[in-house]
Amino acid sequence: MLSGGVGAARFLQGVTAVVPPADVTAIGNVGDDLEIYGLHVSPDLDTLLYTLSGWNDEQKGWGVRGDTARALERARELGAPAWFWLGDLDIGLHLARTERLRRGEPLSLVTVGLAAALGLELQLLPCTDDRLRTILATDVGELEFQTYYVARGHQDRVLGIRFDGAEEARPAPGVLEALSGAEAILIAPSNPLISIAPILAVQDIREALAARSAPCVAVSPIVGGAAIRGPAADMLISMGHEPSPVGVARLYGGLIDALVLDRADADLAPAVEELGVRAIVVDTIMRDPAARAGLAREALGAAGLLVS
Amino acid sequence: MLSGGVGAARFLQGVTAVVPPADVTAIGNVGDDLEIYGLHVSPDLDTLLYTLSGWNDEQKGWGVRGDTARALERARELGAPAWFWLGDLDIGLHLARTERLRRGEPLSLVTVGLAAALGLELQLLPCTDDRLRTILATDVGELEFQTYYVARGHQDRVLGIRFDGAEEARPAPGVLEALSGAEAILIAPSNPLISIAPILAVQDIREALAARSAPCVAVSPIVGGAAIRGPAADMLISMGHEPSPVGVARLYGGLIDALVLDRADADLAPAVEELGVRAIVVDTIMRDPAARAGLAREALGAAGLLVS
Repeated sequence: MLSGGVGAARFLQGVTAVVPPADVTAIGNVGDDLEIYGLHVSPDLDTLLYTLSGWNDEQKGWGVRGDTARALERARELGAPAWFWLGDLDIGLHLARTERLRRGEPLSLVTVGLAAALGLELQLLPCTDDRLRTILATDVGELEFQTYYVARGHQDRVLGIRFDGAEEARPAPGVLEALSGAEAILIAPSNPLISIAPILAVQDIREALAARSAPCVAVSPIVGGAAIRGPAADMLISMGHEPSPVGVARLYGGLIDALVLDRADADLAPAVEELGVRAIVVDTIMRDPAARAGLAREALGAAGLLVS
Repeated sequence: MLSGGVGAARFLQGVTAVVPPADVTAIGNVGDDLEIYGLHVSPDLDTLLYTLSGWNDEQKGWGVRGDTARALERARELGAPAWFWLGDLDIGLHLARTERLRRGEPLSLVTVGLAAALGLELQLLPCTDDRLRTILATDVGELEFQTYYVARGHQDRVLGIRFDGAEEARPAPGVLEALSGAEAILIAPSNPLISIAPILAVQDIREALAARSAPCVAVSPIVGGAAIRGPAADMLISMGHEPSPVGVARLYGGLIDALVLDRADADLAPAVEELGVRAIVVDTIMRDPAARAGLAREALGAAGLLVS
């Protein structure tokens, strides 16, 4: 599964509920990563780690449930620019990650280690061990991703997106093997422009997906013209795309065989199919574990798995 | 005042109780600094900051009173080598420092900012903004300072000491001005070999001290053949020095005019004076604020201040 953050984490919960977790590889976005206060933070990978290990703050979608912020509040009192929230337990994970990176371990090995320490059986990999950063061109100038998203509350109009470092980035070890060996490839209901596109910006990953032998099924993160979460719909519009499953299917042109879309968009199924993409119309809102598992079953079914 | 960690902090409490804190400049050791988990930690500067602001854990001597270790315990669970204890509030200070250093601010400016945020009136400066690290040659090989001190519990025999970076290190802004403009210069009761020597390893500081116009008074950290705290006595012996005020006076040869020593060592006063150093025999154990102020009064009096 190609994965962004919160939506991907919930979908992945569903997938690992219906197939053995050890059979699943999640390939995560690192375009949102940042170094802050000296710590290396990988927000999307962390959301996957926290959600799948049950540590997550389900209400916020990110961070650790019940976490305190003693360190951050102290840093703020001492004049630090504390716009990026970090809880104490969360900092513990960043300390562990940063120390291993500083010792020269690649991010993929560190991530596998953190997943193992959290008792996860699935394979969680960053798309690349190289530096890859999402930079947004907006009406107030170029912004690093977290400046746009967190510091400025994703209010700015996005006019362009680039992935700094993508040209030189190589897939992390295991990524191409997972794609070539997969029985099914899923693209999570994540923002196609800023969660999935950074992964596809690694050329060898895009090429492996284009040359896939397994079916690839995406789940639309857009329902009824809006994003379930985050700025995807506004961003699609300002970037000249249709904020609908049709727009999503076009963005994934040549890379997916089927798109799962919500019943609210059932009338758009023919337009999706005209693009050569099979449209699977189901309930896609993942409000509880049963709904997450149900959506996973539909997506995997569309990929030819779980069919009795 | 040239300052190490815990002993210096207690002595500095005394000094700022008897003269206006705004008239005091503490020049701190950075040879013990380390980068750990991505954070820049300055243990001696932190001990001064914490002690003078009243945050300190008086019993341990270092760290923040009542601090928790949620982040560090989590990091440890996730496989981090958590040999260096960091409390959550403590991490807050390290986050604030590290972020400012990462933005290109020199350590001296960051330290002044932290002291101001903590409401301190004295001027606290690192001896240098450049990288300077204490490296110990021991019977188990060369060790970085914190590896020797914390990770291995200062059990190894010290055969040599060097200060990596000292040759290129320049005094931090304000240090030479403080020394040349001082009415009195004090050397805190800190380990001469690993707390004060790194400061003196910055050549311009040593030269400024040698060429001083103000009297310089040191306080012996060795009482009755032992250190009040830490491995100073064993280290003096293994490095071929006498573990006594006489050995301390010899190490500061040419740099001090008087040495304050404890009544327990009164019999050594003549030997100190034979070195051309005036010996001031008083109670030097700083068990409470009154004792700290009393010792400060003696040292400042020996320097010709506070004399009515």
